[in-house]
Amino acid sequence: MLRRHLSLATVGVATALGVAASRRCLHYAPRVRDVQFLMEDVFNMYPHYEKLGRADVNKELFDALLEEASKLATHTLLPLYTSSDDEGCHLLKDGTVTTPKGFKEAYEAYKSGGWVGISLPEEYGGQGLPGSVGFTLRELLATANWPFAMYSGLSMGAANTLLAWGSEEQNKTYLTKLVSGEWTGTMCLTEPQCGTDLAQVKTKAEPCGDGTYKLRGTKIFISAGDHDMTENIVHVVLARLPDSVPTTKGISLFLVPRNLVKPDGSLDKKKNVQCVGLESKMGIKGSATAQLSFEDSVGYLIGKPNEGMKEMFTFMNTARVGTSLQGVCHAELAFQNALKYARERGSQRSLSGVKCPDRPNDPLVWHPNVRQNILFAKAIAEGGRAFLMDVDRLLDIQEVTKDAATRNALEHEIGFYTPIAKGCLTEWGLEASSRCLQVWGGHGYIKGNGMEQILRDARIATLYEGTTGIQSLDFIGRKVLRSKTDEVSRVGGKVNALARSHFFLRGPIGKFSRRLWTFQKQWRLAITRVKMGALSDIDSVGAASEDMLMCTGYLLLGYYWLRMAIAAQKKVAAGQDPDGFYQCKLDLCAFFFQNILPRADTHFQVLQAGSDIVKSNEAAWDLA
Amino acid sequence: MLRRHLSLATVGVATALGVAASRRCLHYAPRVRDVQFLMEDVFNMYPHYEKLGRADVNKELFDALLEEASKLATHTLLPLYTSSDDEGCHLLKDGTVTTPKGFKEAYEAYKSGGWVGISLPEEYGGQGLPGSVGFTLRELLATANWPFAMYSGLSMGAANTLLAWGSEEQNKTYLTKLVSGEWTGTMCLTEPQCGTDLAQVKTKAEPCGDGTYKLRGTKIFISAGDHDMTENIVHVVLARLPDSVPTTKGISLFLVPRNLVKPDGSLDKKKNVQCVGLESKMGIKGSATAQLSFEDSVGYLIGKPNEGMKEMFTFMNTARVGTSLQGVCHAELAFQNALKYARERGSQRSLSGVKCPDRPNDPLVWHPNVRQNILFAKAIAEGGRAFLMDVDRLLDIQEVTKDAATRNALEHEIGFYTPIAKGCLTEWGLEASSRCLQVWGGHGYIKGNGMEQILRDARIATLYEGTTGIQSLDFIGRKVLRSKTDEVSRVGGKVNALARSHFFLRGPIGKFSRRLWTFQKQWRLAITRVKMGALSDIDSVGAASEDMLMCTGYLLLGYYWLRMAIAAQKKVAAGQDPDGFYQCKLDLCAFFFQNILPRADTHFQVLQAGSDIVKSNEAAWDLA
Repeated sequence: MLRRHLSLATVGVATALGVAASRRCLHYAPRVRDVQFLMEDVFNMYPHYEKLGRADVNKELFDALLEEASKLATHTLLPLYTSSDDEGCHLLKDGTVTTPKGFKEAYEAYKSGGWVGISLPEEYGGQGLPGSVGFTLRELLATANWPFAMYSGLSMGAANTLLAWGSEEQNKTYLTKLVSGEWTGTMCLTEPQCGTDLAQVKTKAEPCGDGTYKLRGTKIFISAGDHDMTENIVHVVLARLPDSVPTTKGISLFLVPRNLVKPDGSLDKKKNVQCVGLESKMGIKGSATAQLSFEDSVGYLIGKPNEGMKEMFTFMNTARVGTSLQGVCHAELAFQNALKYARERGSQRSLSGVKCPDRPNDPLVWHPNVRQNILFAKAIAEGGRAFLMDVDRLLDIQEVTKDAATRNALEHEIGFYTPIAKGCLTEWGLEASSRCLQVWGGHGYIKGNGMEQILRDARIATLYEGTTGIQSLDFIGRKVLRSKTDEVSRVGGKVNALARSHFFLRGPIGKFSRRLWTFQKQWRLAITRVKMGALSDIDSVGAASEDMLMCTGYLLLGYYWLRMAIAAQKKVAAGQDPDGFYQCKLDLCAFFFQNILPRADTHFQVLQAGSDIVKSNEAAWDLA
Repeated sequence: MLRRHLSLATVGVATALGVAASRRCLHYAPRVRDVQFLMEDVFNMYPHYEKLGRADVNKELFDALLEEASKLATHTLLPLYTSSDDEGCHLLKDGTVTTPKGFKEAYEAYKSGGWVGISLPEEYGGQGLPGSVGFTLRELLATANWPFAMYSGLSMGAANTLLAWGSEEQNKTYLTKLVSGEWTGTMCLTEPQCGTDLAQVKTKAEPCGDGTYKLRGTKIFISAGDHDMTENIVHVVLARLPDSVPTTKGISLFLVPRNLVKPDGSLDKKKNVQCVGLESKMGIKGSATAQLSFEDSVGYLIGKPNEGMKEMFTFMNTARVGTSLQGVCHAELAFQNALKYARERGSQRSLSGVKCPDRPNDPLVWHPNVRQNILFAKAIAEGGRAFLMDVDRLLDIQEVTKDAATRNALEHEIGFYTPIAKGCLTEWGLEASSRCLQVWGGHGYIKGNGMEQILRDARIATLYEGTTGIQSLDFIGRKVLRSKTDEVSRVGGKVNALARSHFFLRGPIGKFSRRLWTFQKQWRLAITRVKMGALSDIDSVGAASEDMLMCTGYLLLGYYWLRMAIAAQKKVAAGQDPDGFYQCKLDLCAFFFQNILPRADTHFQVLQAGSDIVKSNEAAWDLA
């Protein structure tokens, strides 16, 4: 069933259309070996799939999918990345929203390749592959063109919400279309007066008496909110029923199709939801960010009245893990293009003597400071990739387990990782993009070279789906202080077990293990301190939240780098490293422990600073 | 003489032209009190001017200038800031370069106000005020519109080069026009194949036998390289004489006017230097970045043959200190706009209880994490302002001293501060811009709100006039390891003296002093280690360079925050703080020591990492 798609995806849409000719196309070679290393040497994913009862997901199948995703990414999506930034999306006078040249054709290839529903149930027309398969392949596609990948990302979120809460009828009509990619979905939360603070949502839903509702209100910042790639869009909308309590407990979830579906299945030509504006943004310009007006728009209740927030959070967790991927994607793309430039561009001689005597100067890559910038991005991309694959592995198990206790435990464990993945990976991805631009010097600032686009595109990631500040509060509040399970001990124990079992080894693995072990102790102490501080001064928790989040991120990144190093060391020791691929993992692990992990010490100090700043009189801050 | 200008500058050009109506204008209120605090309470600048023999530069005069600069900044320059980003500069088919609407008129106001030549000699038509006066006022103007301020910034650099090396005739013809602002200047170094590595410069200068030269070559990234605001442009150009040695010792400096000056003083209508392209950049779009073609362009040698690099560095130091100002400007502008938004925008309740019961939620400014982002920018803007004022004070003395030993000592001291100011302040300004955008959440990503423009504009600062990596190598190489004077001991001693003299005080000042004292010891030890490492492994110096630079930056920022706190504490203790202005300095000093200085510990660890990364086989880094 999957095989039928394997030959379809590779359509060189961009080349055929002749776009992007005026601008340099960024370099991107999907890191297939890196993914295989994680799948096979680090996480033993094939035995994992076997345990899930999915022995059909084997190396042969996965490698074929990797190859297919690589082709789609590099032939079809990548060439549209820079051109879509130049062109952007446009709202025409007739209310149509146009996407950049080539997107429609690329979406057709994406859809017909079966990529939208790759991990959605076969029952609704999906490929039914485990979530980790879809998510791992999605990285390749999204790295090539993040703004394009957002459309299907939103569809997957909407589909997951319906899967969890939709009625049979809703699923038959709408979910199947989302899964096939015939229609796309959205997530309508934000309004002009509120983003984070959803208690302020004003959009109203009036019951019509026939089981339908009429929605009135304005939603802003709606990604994929309108476009011309599919003939319909399924909006999932937060709104209030009449007389609802004015808190988040008075919010319900509605399904509002852009075009109503008539009884015969055809679409009403008149739009049920109006796009009244598109945002002019810093980046992700190929992604249409719409302002939507609901003017007695017909909607259908999803799930139960007043349970919209709970239901929406199904969507939100998927969305947050999905957004964390952006950090990996942009770190990888930035890394590859910085490395390419640093190998080509010469400047001065290496401090330790001539490296390329046949050239007038040595390539940038010989300068240690340049290496540091490049390797930061590499450490984030590869460490982040490992982190996310492990989270996906847990999601796979959660998906199929029949045991309620296991499912509940996994929900807490994944919930603990979610704000760290979203918060830290997007912050690191942003930094990686900026550092890789830096490698290009002044040329990085020039539009035609593409590096500044990566930075502009990466900048949204720490803002949407909850800012880093919000992830930090979610983490320290819900996932640490008020958690019903002791995730801190679970994670600490996991890190401890790994570090202890390699503690006395000679060489780098032992050294890294001892360092990580110490760090884990320090981290637990820091959490205890924050907990104790919370008893007398709750503002000290808010003040410590982001530093606590980042610390925990470094702990986990260190854990995954150590796991990668252990796996790589085995290959090196066995003499199975002809081209230095595995040695490189050991080098990078050393770089992580020497150049990145020390940041945690700063965070440890800062998170103990207390809440004095809350007492400072802000009225005097800007006296002129 | 100065007074004659005081009423001229305040022309509401933008308002008159009706530009910028479609977009939100950023908020900016020049921090006049902050400047006065530094001038009067921290650095005793009026006694300093008296010692320079400039008793005429008193509070009355300076305050009047501050008021005038504030008016020009807020009425004329600020409204053009966002609109110039939308419009950009354009190269027309006839070779003319247009600047954004309003720039011409604003430049006229700037020029007729006497601002270009404010610190240039009266002999050439300048105002002859000490450099620190011009530089301090320049901050206000440049904060309102950095891309606009670049044009006059380049003129000042060119003028300083001519002042140092120009012949009497050159100065009469060209310098006077630069000083008056009738013409602007540029600095033509970069070529397509080289920026940092100027040994690769290819532009040739052929002697014509009559004392003039014909230049052939291409220069890129030339700020203010062509525009329509003045009728001529004075290019200062690096080029090679025939048979020059193929190193930086074979480079000479030339003056090449865009339009040749005829014997009667009128201008040749035909351009002597062609603008063949404008860069499309990430930001600073109001600043024209030109690609210039020299096609047998007539030029005049500045100074001596083959001494171009030395001569250019006069220009370069001014340019680097001038660029460091960008960090302060963007941190200040970002700070003010983040604070304004955080006071207006409500989201959720403060963790420690309702702060604004009359509102449905509390303003963002009550959330500790939001405060941390805002205060980071404030700490950088105010700390950076203090740092630069002290450097300017040294420049003032260097300018007038008749004593060669004093001048030489000051040259070394200022040379030590230059890469720190350029490297650290621009990195911090960039971070401040990003953190303040973060305060706005998703709204920060929207073009119309202006925050993303600040970030895009700030991004260039760590790239031009030498990247942060280059500043780091200049610092550790020329200013530490190979310095003929012991600046490390001088600076260490200065910090030590301040910290020791307040070491035993109770309260915050004593606490900060002890912390700074410890830090200074740690810093000196770190430098000693890097020096020792250099003996056996020169790559370890390159690897340590940026961390060493940043550490030193934090040391100096701590020193200036302590000085500000000491001055503020006196006012608070004397009961002279009715509106909390001085208490606020103490609060921010605490914030600096608790939340920012701990970063130095990470840098200390990382700079000891050695040079292993140089040995890593980069060919294997991106195996796919």
